[in-house]
Amino acid sequence: MAPLLEGIIAALTTPFVGDEVSTAKFEENIRKFNGTGLTGYLVLGSTGECVSLSDAESEALVRAARATAAPGKAVIAGTGRESTRLTIDFTNRMADSGIDVALVRSPSYFKSRLTRDALKAHFLAVADKARVPILVYNVPANTGISLEASLVIELSAHPNIQGLKESSGNIAYLGEVIRRVPPGFRYFSGSGSVFLPGLELGACGAILAVANAAPELCSKVNCLFLERKLDEARKLQLDLIPLNKGIMEGTGIAGLKYALDLRGYYGGPVRLPLLSPGEQAKTEIAGLMKELGLV
Amino acid sequence: MAPLLEGIIAALTTPFVGDEVSTAKFEENIRKFNGTGLTGYLVLGSTGECVSLSDAESEALVRAARATAAPGKAVIAGTGRESTRLTIDFTNRMADSGIDVALVRSPSYFKSRLTRDALKAHFLAVADKARVPILVYNVPANTGISLEASLVIELSAHPNIQGLKESSGNIAYLGEVIRRVPPGFRYFSGSGSVFLPGLELGACGAILAVANAAPELCSKVNCLFLERKLDEARKLQLDLIPLNKGIMEGTGIAGLKYALDLRGYYGGPVRLPLLSPGEQAKTEIAGLMKELGLV
Amino acid sequence: MAPLLEGIIAALTTPFVGDEVSTAKFEENIRKFNGTGLTGYLVLGSTGECVSLSDAESEALVRAARATAAPGKAVIAGTGRESTRLTIDFTNRMADSGIDVALVRSPSYFKSRLTRDALKAHFLAVADKARVPILVYNVPANTGISLEASLVIELSAHPNIQGLKESSGNIAYLGEVIRRVPPGFRYFSGSGSVFLPGLELGACGAILAVANAAPELCSKVNCLFLERKLDEARKLQLDLIPLNKGIMEGTGIAGLKYALDLRGYYGGPVRLPLLSPGEQAKTEIAGLMKELGLV
Amino acid sequence: MAPLLEGIIAALTTPFVGDEVSTAKFEENIRKFNGTGLTGYLVLGSTGECVSLSDAESEALVRAARATAAPGKAVIAGTGRESTRLTIDFTNRMADSGIDVALVRSPSYFKSRLTRDALKAHFLAVADKARVPILVYNVPANTGISLEASLVIELSAHPNIQGLKESSGNIAYLGEVIRRVPPGFRYFSGSGSVFLPGLELGACGAILAVANAAPELCSKVNCLFLERKLDEARKLQLDLIPLNKGIMEGTGIAGLKYALDLRGYYGGPVRLPLLSPGEQAKTEIAGLMKELGLV
Repeated sequence: MAPLLEGIIAALTTPFVGDEVSTAKFEENIRKFNGTGLTGYLVLGSTGECVSLSDAESEALVRAARATAAPGKAVIAGTGRESTRLTIDFTNRMADSGIDVALVRSPSYFKSRLTRDALKAHFLAVADKARVPILVYNVPANTGISLEASLVIELSAHPNIQGLKESSGNIAYLGEVIRRVPPGFRYFSGSGSVFLPGLELGACGAILAVANAAPELCSKVNCLFLERKLDEARKLQLDLIPLNKGIMEGTGIAGLKYALDLRGYYGGPVRLPLLSPGEQAKTEIAGLMKELGLV
Repeated sequence: MAPLLEGIIAALTTPFVGDEVSTAKFEENIRKFNGTGLTGYLVLGSTGECVSLSDAESEALVRAARATAAPGKAVIAGTGRESTRLTIDFTNRMADSGIDVALVRSPSYFKSRLTRDALKAHFLAVADKARVPILVYNVPANTGISLEASLVIELSAHPNIQGLKESSGNIAYLGEVIRRVPPGFRYFSGSGSVFLPGLELGACGAILAVANAAPELCSKVNCLFLERKLDEARKLQLDLIPLNKGIMEGTGIAGLKYALDLRGYYGGPVRLPLLSPGEQAKTEIAGLMKELGLV
Repeated sequence: MAPLLEGIIAALTTPFVGDEVSTAKFEENIRKFNGTGLTGYLVLGSTGECVSLSDAESEALVRAARATAAPGKAVIAGTGRESTRLTIDFTNRMADSGIDVALVRSPSYFKSRLTRDALKAHFLAVADKARVPILVYNVPANTGISLEASLVIELSAHPNIQGLKESSGNIAYLGEVIRRVPPGFRYFSGSGSVFLPGLELGACGAILAVANAAPELCSKVNCLFLERKLDEARKLQLDLIPLNKGIMEGTGIAGLKYALDLRGYYGGPVRLPLLSPGEQAKTEIAGLMKELGLV
Repeated sequence: MAPLLEGIIAALTTPFVGDEVSTAKFEENIRKFNGTGLTGYLVLGSTGECVSLSDAESEALVRAARATAAPGKAVIAGTGRESTRLTIDFTNRMADSGIDVALVRSPSYFKSRLTRDALKAHFLAVADKARVPILVYNVPANTGISLEASLVIELSAHPNIQGLKESSGNIAYLGEVIRRVPPGFRYFSGSGSVFLPGLELGACGAILAVANAAPELCSKVNCLFLERKLDEARKLQLDLIPLNKGIMEGTGIAGLKYALDLRGYYGGPVRLPLLSPGEQAKTEIAGLMKELGLV
């Protein structure tokens, strides 16, 4: 039976050796992550450079994650595509490859046509046909599309829509949604800078890129929150902001991979059109990691 | 001596009778607000339709607020203009009219020229010449200009820049700023939906439009926070979200004035180009007010 | 040898029967278009719902177009993907399927990382490896990414970058580019409302969605321009604006397919997340077609 | 009787000596401009740093322009304010100071409330009460507000709305408007890079910032157009693009003032928050001016 999603889930990076996906490096990383407090793994998220991968590469990564994740750790995959049909097909291919839950981002290419009605029809059709539960994914920084809180509330009535990952960092959005969804709806923050305020308002956990670089710290914020040690939790959350901003607003995935390298995981290069970080960015990241005692 | 800014400050509306400013109605409202837990008043904020008023009308409102505010209540005024010179002139005219602190929003018309350097030069020059302390005001929804956190941190070193009002609702922004400003820097949230998370991360208080409609509730969130009754505070903050969103994202100032009318304050009409709320919007606002026991 | 791109090229729609691609209907349409003045066909453009199709469907469409296009008509395909590697692979797969030229739109998902340097590296790598010439495609309405004129000018030096399709409708952009690219650089307008001003400033032709509905009129504007009958050309261009705007800003591809149906071509349904036009939209489109004598 | 607006109107800069408005320098400039082919002057446009000026400074500039403009030259002033009331008051103050026509930009501060209905009510009320004819001004780069073509068409029925200045550079917008406004409606392009295509589609003229630096060339494009020497006109228009872009997208008003200085007019400094151009920008501007034979 699939684990209930909660706690801190890392949005894993995709290791390349040269320009080839390395499932071996991917499995090595996951084995190390199994020993931290992470409760699950997101494969093929934005952080995993999902849009840069072929379907075959994507499937290989999911199978590797399923085979390597410790028992009880959730395996989620990003399965959104631009059309409803492609999304359903790919979601079910990933379901057959072993994921527990699919994270479905909004389509985005036909921006001016993606009305509330179109998005609603899309997510309902995907939820109807998907052979695993889905999380709706709001990530306007990448898609240019914001899912209205009222749409999420409406979608939450579908039995196969299990929850939401919200990456705009808008805490009020959570506050609005949380009161009006069915009990058991799983709400996840996607921002490493504000997931504690999210937990305080009722989120189940967080799905974080920065959890690659600092899985222990992110998990500790969650534990302190669960123990109601809010002052300590808050101090740690504040400590995480410079690292999260420094990496994610600085050089993004490329910098995050560099942070992984610094910690003895495999980060490696990004795939074009992403570019490697320059020396100055590397120095900054190393400094931020050091400040947090991570290297 | 000026009161230290803290707690819940209402961003007051400007009463019109017909299309004329009524300082009499304004004073009536303030006298009633004096009996709530509000710690101060913002005159000439966005909520006060500042950009729709002449300088003479603006001065009359400030003088009325100063004369009517109970002892110990802060009187702040929005004094931003598009040029540095006009901002300094108007800030000092308002200083002479009795404000404790000036809230200075970013200029916005020459968007493509308002670089970090230009904004820095602007705020430093205003701070140098203003005869009252200033709060820097970040309000991208109106200005289309976002002040970078790093700029605010730099500005905070100026002895006459007392703090920041941040109305984008971005909690991470607060987390980034709060660690790197001098002790005593006054940070205020401008969002009625997320001011509790702001307080938890270290804000001094909040300057809120919704505090016109629900001054007692907003103040109570702050009191509960100060007493560390966080669960109760959180419940109330969540309760406030539908009202705040319903009014501010629905019909805005026009709806807020209608809420004031419902509560026995004077709301009255807005000045063109703002439009009055329709019947449906009024019914919704009345419903939201009723849910909170405000009418 | 590949035909030189010029004149009016239609950005073809993709026919679905139910939710299945119909290459039979696609070929029927092309056979009819062969009898109009169009000089070529764009398969897998935005108008072709490219992002909604599988790679296998895409290949089938390209092979059908190649097989059916009359001799001398150019066959172009949109081959942009989010990563450089996927773009090269797909471009060459389409090259092997018979296209003359590939139209490569900018990647867009990692918006904040798609700097000038990243976009430059992407397009140069694609141009290096592609086995057909490429046209760079600027389509900010869909991608949220604007290619700077100076970048296009720089890219134009690459021997395998044959030209540009510019769909933002910005005529000044053309004026800036046209003076500084090598002779022989092929510049195409992508806007049915302003392609005549484009021709007048030096464009080679236009690649147009509205050419599905009005291939004869679009071609006639081009012919009149070539014959220097500018007043007549201008009158026709102005006539086309309401139809182009009515369809493309109204219901988009769904409406364009309806216009095809009206003219005896096969339009048919769109694939989700696009939605079919309502009755009112259909009536408007029929009216606009009638005004132009197209039905 | 007021001159009919047509031809090339310069959007004049406002001369400062130190930080003080100099009407003497302003008059000097106008006297020189009287000898070029310009047909009129826009005072208090965006280029005139209108938002940086006090009402008294504004009035002094208008009176100076009226007194100095040669007979037959039109004097227009930008009179838009954020509220309908302030706009009417200021428009009529400028009417009393001698302007022929008022150019009224859209309000912009209350972005989310400035619906089509609100903007319509605003412009109609201003037109009703203004004692001079008005031009509606669409300038989204500064205001963040786009006036829909259909709104302009609707407004054009008002007897006191004489025309439109359109500065977004969208030629299709013109094509859409021009067919559906009353004969005699005055349409002006506001873009120095695309005013010839505007003229070709039916505009009456252009109101241009770049006409400060190159009044003779701008006027010549218009003359060549009127003489139907379109190839020559086009060549000149293309020549103007680098200068226009280099100044207006480069350093803006500050650079334009530097270009005036180079030509022997008075440019002088800008008012804060605008910043002076650096040495590199100055060198570029000097180079662009030289290329056109302007210095």
